[in-house]
Amino acid sequence: MVKWYLHPRFTLSCTTKNHLNIKTLTPNQLIKAQQRISVNLLCTPIIASTTVDIHCNAEVFFKCENLQRTGSFKVRGAFNAILSYSADQLKHGVATHSSGNHAQALALAAKTFGVKSHIVMPYNSPEVKINGVKEHGGVITLCDPTLAAREIALNRIIKKTGAIFIPPYDHPEIICGQSTVTQEIFRHANKPIDVILAPLGGGGLLSGTGLAAHFFSPNTKVYGAEPENVNDGQRSFRSGKLEHNAPQSTTMADGLKTHLSDLTLGYIRNHVCDIFTVSESAIAEAMLLIWQSLKVIVEPSAAVPLAALIQQKHQFKDKRVALIVSGGNVDLNNIPFMKPSTV
Amino acid sequence: MVKWYLHPRFTLSCTTKNHLNIKTLTPNQLIKAQQRISVNLLCTPIIASTTVDIHCNAEVFFKCENLQRTGSFKVRGAFNAILSYSADQLKHGVATHSSGNHAQALALAAKTFGVKSHIVMPYNSPEVKINGVKEHGGVITLCDPTLAAREIALNRIIKKTGAIFIPPYDHPEIICGQSTVTQEIFRHANKPIDVILAPLGGGGLLSGTGLAAHFFSPNTKVYGAEPENVNDGQRSFRSGKLEHNAPQSTTMADGLKTHLSDLTLGYIRNHVCDIFTVSESAIAEAMLLIWQSLKVIVEPSAAVPLAALIQQKHQFKDKRVALIVSGGNVDLNNIPFMKPSTV
Repeated sequence: MVKWYLHPRFTLSCTTKNHLNIKTLTPNQLIKAQQRISVNLLCTPIIASTTVDIHCNAEVFFKCENLQRTGSFKVRGAFNAILSYSADQLKHGVATHSSGNHAQALALAAKTFGVKSHIVMPYNSPEVKINGVKEHGGVITLCDPTLAAREIALNRIIKKTGAIFIPPYDHPEIICGQSTVTQEIFRHANKPIDVILAPLGGGGLLSGTGLAAHFFSPNTKVYGAEPENVNDGQRSFRSGKLEHNAPQSTTMADGLKTHLSDLTLGYIRNHVCDIFTVSESAIAEAMLLIWQSLKVIVEPSAAVPLAALIQQKHQFKDKRVALIVSGGNVDLNNIPFMKPSTV
Repeated sequence: MVKWYLHPRFTLSCTTKNHLNIKTLTPNQLIKAQQRISVNLLCTPIIASTTVDIHCNAEVFFKCENLQRTGSFKVRGAFNAILSYSADQLKHGVATHSSGNHAQALALAAKTFGVKSHIVMPYNSPEVKINGVKEHGGVITLCDPTLAAREIALNRIIKKTGAIFIPPYDHPEIICGQSTVTQEIFRHANKPIDVILAPLGGGGLLSGTGLAAHFFSPNTKVYGAEPENVNDGQRSFRSGKLEHNAPQSTTMADGLKTHLSDLTLGYIRNHVCDIFTVSESAIAEAMLLIWQSLKVIVEPSAAVPLAALIQQKHQFKDKRVALIVSGGNVDLNNIPFMKPSTV
């Protein structure tokens, strides 16, 4: 059974813990982000399934950012970041490098406000993602598929055009934008939430999740979840310094390959309880369970929190757990859980 | 872009056309169905996608019954039919034969009201559907996969137990239940709807759709859509008598193989403008478009209305068109649009 919560009850409350060092972000910045992005973006639904509840021994809520515009939560940060600059500051456009969901998100946000966007993409990016950026009017520069090549191409564009760099996660207003996912969970879930699990890549979403819980629902515990193949997040969280993955590390959850930044590591260390890692097969199984039980399409990265919940179900028994379903942009010809055809 | 309509505006109005012969159903019966099923069932969301709008040259709304309990609209009719009997009438249980979504729907409805359900299913029904019925406490009788065998088994059960037969569509209260899909469209869409397209199998859903439009939104035109491989509906609609398909006829839209009844043909002839038929490849393409653009999982039958809209797009240019997405119960190992793996 899939349950829909269509009649939101506004329960946003604001409290602060005083024993944590919160750097520069305030509850008001998070609330402001929610107010200004809501004009253009969707309040995505929260859905649930008794099949999943039974499987997890918990009451599980899925916040469906796969149903957000451009198919991922990334637009929240992109819209909020652009809206944090003045028209004058934006007159030369915005720029970023991305092979993933941030590219389309920034292109759409820029187009919405009549701002030019320059997107550096590796030449081997999926055709569908390149087309998505083009559709939103992004000016694409293709480069070699290395971080160095991407940064060189981006810096050249910024120097030439004067565009503002909007990174995918290492920016306070991106983090405020991503916090709106969790603000909406608190506002629209029909019950208080004990636990939130969010996927961890660069840490923008998890930082925003931790901050929103800290400010608006301090009894809610926040955890991150990442593939064990790219477990830099867990290692960074534990050591307190930025750790990296071996260059050949790979995962089907391609949105979660990026590393943390000092900014996101700081927020995550302050406001997140722990980071779980999960195997590739656990990700594929969780993805299949979501497709079958909830009838919505999620990308592998978006299934990582459910994989972590299933793995840790003894820990979260009988809790009310919200999972952030980060995106739904998946290549339908390359689905991890599909059995190879025998044709 | 996927749009969600989460803030319904109640616009239900009641008017009647007086030149049509409406047999026994009244607007109040439809409204009563809506009131009594709402306690247990979901008001499913209406979603939209700019990609689809551009593709169809129309403003297209999808009413997502794939996200309904048991994964299809069939529970609406099943709940309403059971609720139309007294506790005394139901004391010996309910019975039906079905290999599809009606089986699970009736089992769930019966369980909800503490009524025993007897479900006759062909022994070659998919394991997942048999398990779905079992999960809801249905007592299953397996039989040979022919209509004759199903009817013999069902009659034996009814004789033995005194259970009430609840057919999948040939029942006025089933039709009233299915009409609630369209009542919710009128109530929750943020704009008046010019056209509704519903899939056509046995005609319960299409009858309810036509009746609801007739009573509550007489300017809305209702059309049916069915696979051209099983076009008995179109032929019956045109000839005015029950037509049948060749026994070997088949379609990937397995929910639409059934024939009309006198009751459903009557309502459809009275309240539906026309029936369109679509090819198998058009169904697969429409299904892929929904998966990709809307990020929700639909079964082949549920993609038939979109296939018809794409085929008839000259006719519906610039109209506001609602499509009824009837269900999402699909075998994920047998998806029509998937390219065979080369592994």
